Amino acid sequence: MARHIMTLTCDDRPGIVAAVSDALLKVDANIVENQQFSDEDTNLFFMRTVFDAESDDVATVLTAIDSSDAIEHQHLAVRPEDERCRTLILVSKFDHCLLDLLYRWKSGDLPIDIVGVVSNHEDCRALVEYYGLPFTLIPVTADTKRDAETELMKLVEAEDVQLVVLARYMQILSDWLCEQLAGRAINIHHSFLPGFKGAKPYHQAHDRGVKLVGASAHYVTADLDEGPIIEQDVVRVTHAETPSRLVAIGRDVERRVLSNAVRAHAESRIFLSGRRTIVF
Amino acid sequence: MARHIMTLTCDDRPGIVAAVSDALLKVDANIVENQQFSDEDTNLFFMRTVFDAESDDVATVLTAIDSSDAIEHQHLAVRPEDERCRTLILVSKFDHCLLDLLYRWKSGDLPIDIVGVVSNHEDCRALVEYYGLPFTLIPVTADTKRDAETELMKLVEAEDVQLVVLARYMQILSDWLCEQLAGRAINIHHSFLPGFKGAKPYHQAHDRGVKLVGASAHYVTADLDEGPIIEQDVVRVTHAETPSRLVAIGRDVERRVLSNAVRAHAESRIFLSGRRTIVF
Amino acid sequence: MARHIMTLTCDDRPGIVAAVSDALLKVDANIVENQQFSDEDTNLFFMRTVFDAESDDVATVLTAIDSSDAIEHQHLAVRPEDERCRTLILVSKFDHCLLDLLYRWKSGDLPIDIVGVVSNHEDCRALVEYYGLPFTLIPVTADTKRDAETELMKLVEAEDVQLVVLARYMQILSDWLCEQLAGRAINIHHSFLPGFKGAKPYHQAHDRGVKLVGASAHYVTADLDEGPIIEQDVVRVTHAETPSRLVAIGRDVERRVLSNAVRAHAESRIFLSGRRTIVF
Amino acid sequence: MARHIMTLTCDDRPGIVAAVSDALLKVDANIVENQQFSDEDTNLFFMRTVFDAESDDVATVLTAIDSSDAIEHQHLAVRPEDERCRTLILVSKFDHCLLDLLYRWKSGDLPIDIVGVVSNHEDCRALVEYYGLPFTLIPVTADTKRDAETELMKLVEAEDVQLVVLARYMQILSDWLCEQLAGRAINIHHSFLPGFKGAKPYHQAHDRGVKLVGASAHYVTADLDEGPIIEQDVVRVTHAETPSRLVAIGRDVERRVLSNAVRAHAESRIFLSGRRTIVF
Repeated sequence: MARHIMTLTCDDRPGIVAAVSDALLKVDANIVENQQFSDEDTNLFFMRTVFDAESDDVATVLTAIDSSDAIEHQHLAVRPEDERCRTLILVSKFDHCLLDLLYRWKSGDLPIDIVGVVSNHEDCRALVEYYGLPFTLIPVTADTKRDAETELMKLVEAEDVQLVVLARYMQILSDWLCEQLAGRAINIHHSFLPGFKGAKPYHQAHDRGVKLVGASAHYVTADLDEGPIIEQDVVRVTHAETPSRLVAIGRDVERRVLSNAVRAHAESRIFLSGRRTIVF
Repeated sequence: MARHIMTLTCDDRPGIVAAVSDALLKVDANIVENQQFSDEDTNLFFMRTVFDAESDDVATVLTAIDSSDAIEHQHLAVRPEDERCRTLILVSKFDHCLLDLLYRWKSGDLPIDIVGVVSNHEDCRALVEYYGLPFTLIPVTADTKRDAETELMKLVEAEDVQLVVLARYMQILSDWLCEQLAGRAINIHHSFLPGFKGAKPYHQAHDRGVKLVGASAHYVTADLDEGPIIEQDVVRVTHAETPSRLVAIGRDVERRVLSNAVRAHAESRIFLSGRRTIVF
Repeated sequence: MARHIMTLTCDDRPGIVAAVSDALLKVDANIVENQQFSDEDTNLFFMRTVFDAESDDVATVLTAIDSSDAIEHQHLAVRPEDERCRTLILVSKFDHCLLDLLYRWKSGDLPIDIVGVVSNHEDCRALVEYYGLPFTLIPVTADTKRDAETELMKLVEAEDVQLVVLARYMQILSDWLCEQLAGRAINIHHSFLPGFKGAKPYHQAHDRGVKLVGASAHYVTADLDEGPIIEQDVVRVTHAETPSRLVAIGRDVERRVLSNAVRAHAESRIFLSGRRTIVF
Repeated sequence: MARHIMTLTCDDRPGIVAAVSDALLKVDANIVENQQFSDEDTNLFFMRTVFDAESDDVATVLTAIDSSDAIEHQHLAVRPEDERCRTLILVSKFDHCLLDLLYRWKSGDLPIDIVGVVSNHEDCRALVEYYGLPFTLIPVTADTKRDAETELMKLVEAEDVQLVVLARYMQILSDWLCEQLAGRAINIHHSFLPGFKGAKPYHQAHDRGVKLVGASAHYVTADLDEGPIIEQDVVRVTHAETPSRLVAIGRDVERRVLSNAVRAHAESRIFLSGRRTIVF
């Protein structure tokens, strides 16, 4: 028996849970975890089920669920739990989020395979190579942006990348690239969104005199800093913190929030419902 | 259709979810929420299901689940969601937890019916009566303890009490009373258990120089301060806090932790698995 | 000897601490607590000193500091620590912040004297009178707003009010009233400012799908929701929270944040430095 | 002018602040930060003052304070703010705390000079050498423990080490070594002390069913897990966490708590008052 994760999004109506659990019971699968949520705003139903089953039986389960009358307009997927999410990391010069991802990947804390790291600067090459991963320099200027993005997308396709992580990547993606990566690119924004969008959020926070600073991980969309929020956290600060100290304090929150968002994505815990996320 | 909450504890084996969801589907019930957990330590399965169904059909659902082969050594219960938990509060002199419970009850934040407040002191009478509730004085001395507990249990039985809340009630219950109230009496201990058991925990915390103080809500057992923990929280403190300031700071944590534990119990979210709680 | 609190704001330059500590030493005063901060943005120096001294000697201390060459453009004040801040509370219909202030006042947690409660609705009268305090109804309509504010200011002056607390008072103050109350009126806004300004912040938060909701206490200024922030806090929420549940969850944060801000003001811990606060 | 940090511990009596500030004023030093605390339990006074002064004048300041009548049984020290604390790290196999210290050191977040890393295992050699630091293997067995500790102390002395950090070093230090390193060795214990002392604290926490797990950084003393606590933090967990997941979750808290304690020590913010710490 192998452990699998099934994710289902469909119209909300009676009988969905019965249809899924019957399909699993018929092949003697054992449900290990089960989460579900009905979103009244969108009338969508979301379900994440972890089950143990013979690998040969998984196709039978999918067919049974597919043919159920209870389940309409579905998005249905199953994967072995030990299949790791193929991940590409983008970074510029700040390496705190990158290091945290690399460390957690190597220590087994993040169920991802990192296929490589892309940067528009050379700064992080040594760190990436210490971890035995390929580092690809793709410089970006106003003139070369289109070419750089094309090169990036070629890499995404060649490596069958399932998740792109913008770990303090300081380039704004074009609408075209945002669309290509829709639902599979996570960015870390160094503020508690929707407060302090845009540049220099810690300086904005200092000027406004807030008593907490935070970070937000969100899916990338063409609408900058407005993508669906996955995870947020804050840390308490005082009047005595300078903007540069806020930046240092913020690094801890940023790396924690980004790593948690990546883990949730890699464990198939995140669903999109309109502009909001469901995170089981 | 009325909303119901079903709770189930049974041996962990395949087919439980299918049995429950089929039983619900047969009467056209709609599952609104569903949580489950398999405890590998005890091999027990726990499930909490919120569903909408005709009230007449609930008995049919129970019978179907009862007769399922998949479900053994079960504890199964259903109640209408709007049936409020009949609650008796015990208090001594400190009234911060009591006031918090009263306020949340009146504002609709806690789905309980408070049948009355019992105290071994007169101090809280005016507050209780302001909220329009019966206040019963049951003094306790070393000599009268047995009689006092007997009187208390008569009240519990007469009022069909489902939950007893010790809101800073400063008497140690006898083993007999603990047994009578097993699984339906919640105490607030003013420390982050298992640290600082026993008397004057804030003074202990001050002497030890801890940097956080906390509170723990737990079910009452004969083994003092060792009952299953339901909820805990902490708050940051510094060297500058005196023991009396720690007491004042702690009041906020105590009332929050106790109210959260009461809400979880009243919403049928807590299950016992050995000496641990499962809280959905 | 009586305990006093001295607060000083002046231009930042060498010798200030020496001038103050010498002035205190000359009358054999004993410094119990001392906090200071130099704001590089405004070049202002802030100091809060708690000391024990004979009451007769306080004027001598003030004169000595006043005549020091080191201290320019000063704002200097001393008060006995046990002199309680005369406070007026404004409220509309939601009573959770009001109750928290009343309870903390009565239990000695807040060093304030509440001179009364003013409301534009009758809802909170019973609660206020239970606590033995005067309740004044001042209804407000578009036509009577000017008169209502005039009546309020008369009360502020007649009662020598040092602090006005807007405990979910749902009226926008006129520019005139904001100016009258500058630096002595604290409002609680039910969001983590600067996010979700304006009406229905919890609904905004739900629509945006944030993972934390919060509250902010700030001094009232004519620039709505833009006054200097005193205290903020947040609480974690999930996708499952409805807007009405967010409102209920938020009540806890609001009352905690507002009470902490009132305590800081009443203990003379807050200084203004431009649009930011220094909170010792 | 150079920035200096002065720390003072002495008997608590009037005139200390005046003596210090006068001594500083006489050499035209400018006080930038100032913190003080009087511990009523031990009758000790603690002061940390950051000031700008000509380096030549520092000796004059010390002499003036030394000769003051107000200051008795003092411990007085001054150091340039940019003088970094010479630090030796001990580690066994778990490298999460080590990596966090190395990263923060390299990014400038920790004002320390790491003189080397000592381990009883080879596992962390590559990581240490990647950061360009000397790695010293000192194996420890029951038979060689005395020799190993002697070798360690030789290194401490040869390198003029001011701080030893036990970053998950899994050997119990002898009473002799504890004494040698008194007040300059920081350990991270993977529980919220005083709960769950001793081995396998996360397993203990799981068995007890706590709802928060934490970590504590403390000075090393001969009394195991009983040294003065410097910093603590916790993170929320649920019934669903297995012991191994608790271990993984705990790593984040451990590294954060240890790094914060090291920063506080390196910035001369920690004072000992009996078995408690004062942390400015």
